[in-house]
Amino acid sequence: MRVFILGVDGYLGWTLAQWLVKQGHVIGGADCYNRRSWVAEVGGRSATPIGSMTERCDKFVDEYGSTLRFYKGDLRDFNFVWNMLKTFKPDAIVHLGEQPSAPFSMIDAQHAVLTHDNNVNGTLNVLFAMRDVCPEAHLVKLGSMGEWGTPKVDIPEGEFELEFRGRKATMQFPKNPGSYYHCTKSHDSTNVKLACDIWKLRSTDIMQGVVYGINTWDSEELVTRFDFDAVFGTAVNRFCAQAVVGLPLTPYGSGKQKRGFLPLQDSMQCLTLVLEHPPETGEYRVLNQFEETYSIMELAETVQKIVNEKGYMSGTMIRNLVNPRVEEERHYYNPDRQKLLDMGYVPSGKLEDVIDQVLKVLHWNKDRIAARRHSLVPDVQWSGGREAAVEWES
Amino acid sequence: MRVFILGVDGYLGWTLAQWLVKQGHVIGGADCYNRRSWVAEVGGRSATPIGSMTERCDKFVDEYGSTLRFYKGDLRDFNFVWNMLKTFKPDAIVHLGEQPSAPFSMIDAQHAVLTHDNNVNGTLNVLFAMRDVCPEAHLVKLGSMGEWGTPKVDIPEGEFELEFRGRKATMQFPKNPGSYYHCTKSHDSTNVKLACDIWKLRSTDIMQGVVYGINTWDSEELVTRFDFDAVFGTAVNRFCAQAVVGLPLTPYGSGKQKRGFLPLQDSMQCLTLVLEHPPETGEYRVLNQFEETYSIMELAETVQKIVNEKGYMSGTMIRNLVNPRVEEERHYYNPDRQKLLDMGYVPSGKLEDVIDQVLKVLHWNKDRIAARRHSLVPDVQWSGGREAAVEWES
Repeated sequence: MRVFILGVDGYLGWTLAQWLVKQGHVIGGADCYNRRSWVAEVGGRSATPIGSMTERCDKFVDEYGSTLRFYKGDLRDFNFVWNMLKTFKPDAIVHLGEQPSAPFSMIDAQHAVLTHDNNVNGTLNVLFAMRDVCPEAHLVKLGSMGEWGTPKVDIPEGEFELEFRGRKATMQFPKNPGSYYHCTKSHDSTNVKLACDIWKLRSTDIMQGVVYGINTWDSEELVTRFDFDAVFGTAVNRFCAQAVVGLPLTPYGSGKQKRGFLPLQDSMQCLTLVLEHPPETGEYRVLNQFEETYSIMELAETVQKIVNEKGYMSGTMIRNLVNPRVEEERHYYNPDRQKLLDMGYVPSGKLEDVIDQVLKVLHWNKDRIAARRHSLVPDVQWSGGREAAVEWES
Repeated sequence: MRVFILGVDGYLGWTLAQWLVKQGHVIGGADCYNRRSWVAEVGGRSATPIGSMTERCDKFVDEYGSTLRFYKGDLRDFNFVWNMLKTFKPDAIVHLGEQPSAPFSMIDAQHAVLTHDNNVNGTLNVLFAMRDVCPEAHLVKLGSMGEWGTPKVDIPEGEFELEFRGRKATMQFPKNPGSYYHCTKSHDSTNVKLACDIWKLRSTDIMQGVVYGINTWDSEELVTRFDFDAVFGTAVNRFCAQAVVGLPLTPYGSGKQKRGFLPLQDSMQCLTLVLEHPPETGEYRVLNQFEETYSIMELAETVQKIVNEKGYMSGTMIRNLVNPRVEEERHYYNPDRQKLLDMGYVPSGKLEDVIDQVLKVLHWNKDRIAARRHSLVPDVQWSGGREAAVEWES
């Protein structure tokens, strides 16, 4: 299969390129290194040392014996998108080329608009270019479980049967995103569905949980980026980084918030299954992609336990912070994830193993984290300010 | 009340400024004349001769004895938005500053992106500026009944009680927009709701039906713009323009599509009621604003009947065209509109009178329409082409 990865230089994109090439697929990809500059802007960097894209592509062909067709450019440039799809002729496009951070989108108006421009307008260009150049290709669009929010009812996978005043309709389940980043994902979903409805494109819109872990399965030189700062680092990964440099782990508020999580390797397994099971022409298919739901506090406690047991660092503490976000901390949470199981997904159930593996990699790179320890402190307040979050008294 | 109108140079904005100043409100407004250039781009122009904004402001103060504080600029410029709200200090902001045409948004990727950029990013700037400058102001945001699409169940006004697998939740009713323009209105709604949730702004999100009619109630020199081209002209207004230049009226497809409609004067009455009944701090209130639902065919037949009866033109025909849009033509349609009735809205029930009044004004200006008669032919195809729609065989 010819698979084109948008955002191939990122955490998931670079991992996926390697995962798929080993299965014999032909890989192309695009990036404009926005993620590198955004992480630098907030004072972070990848905990793992990563090469330039040129170096990465060289290692890629050495390791796998297959070239990664790389296109450098911005999805906001329609001609760039049109030309690369025209020349690469993809069977599937995996769209990971978005600004992926909720706090980044909440910094100020400029960052909220940048996130909309990059994500929503970039996706529009992809949809129009697909219509004209490769209408048969399968668009695998990465959304977020955060599009749903935390409703008081179960969360189905997209369509559900609504009964209202004695009549029935099959409709898309309502969204309730809690940051401007999550809003852009919801907007994308609406825009992709319209393209499927009117142009008969086919798309899988994946509501993905929070991914954690690291790809250590091949060459060390082919490791993916690993962000630990408070803006681009996600919960488990950030807790591991805090632990290896001897800082307390910092859940927000009570830490009772529940979310869906999945290891990086499960994300790769699921994306592969989705690519192997494309939807019909004109079908807009939504699925929830996560391995398990956890509260943030459970995850902090699990990291703490492993750090202490395995002796990476002694006496790791948990210090809850006043929540910089506006979110419900105690809530019902019961999302479906049946569609991937039906395709053959086997949840790995390896939270502790993955944390151990992450701690090992971060331990080798702990000086890189220590030098940027200030970036671990969350300072983007949903209310609008930019002050470091202080300790929370329960 | 100090009311600030975004898009004050437009069809609704210019009418509203006059309507409100007569009730003693202090009016400010912003525009960058995008509507004028977009209409020119598609070969149209206002059927009514309208002056420059400078001329309009001069007449305004002459007629009403009160200055319209006008700010020339683009909502995509955050500093412009911030500064004007800071200096005007509005009690309410009526946001009409959006690209309002579905066909315009469907021309190509560039027009879809332009519509997103103008509408969604402009609104984001308004929300962030309000948070910082006038968090107590009431944002009256114009959405569209088209955000709902045509579901097989009744359409409530925003929130409804969802029962799902034995549990209940109050949620926003799902949207299903049918063009990229309607998508931007749905995105705006999501973004405005988030601002109310996290920043405690107050907003009324008006799902407005299709407006028709003309403001002839004051000076002829203060008339609002009236678009008749196939891109910016709406159903009733366009049929009237076709009639006065002796062209057949052209519903799309079977014309059985039903939509909510309201006369311009009813729109003004409703907007005034909304301003007089602001929501609570932090409240995101959705309401449906229309006077009556009609099928497109009923409207064409009503225009035809009045034209022939009143002798504006003899033998006016109806010629259905192959539908350039992708939409259901036979569908259930039963939207609520209770909230405005509860505020005191009295539907005028004057379809025939308004059509007669429009025909009169257009008759005086029929040379202006005849000179641009080519712009009456729809050529933006939802499927992607740009070919003039041909006659439909039922």
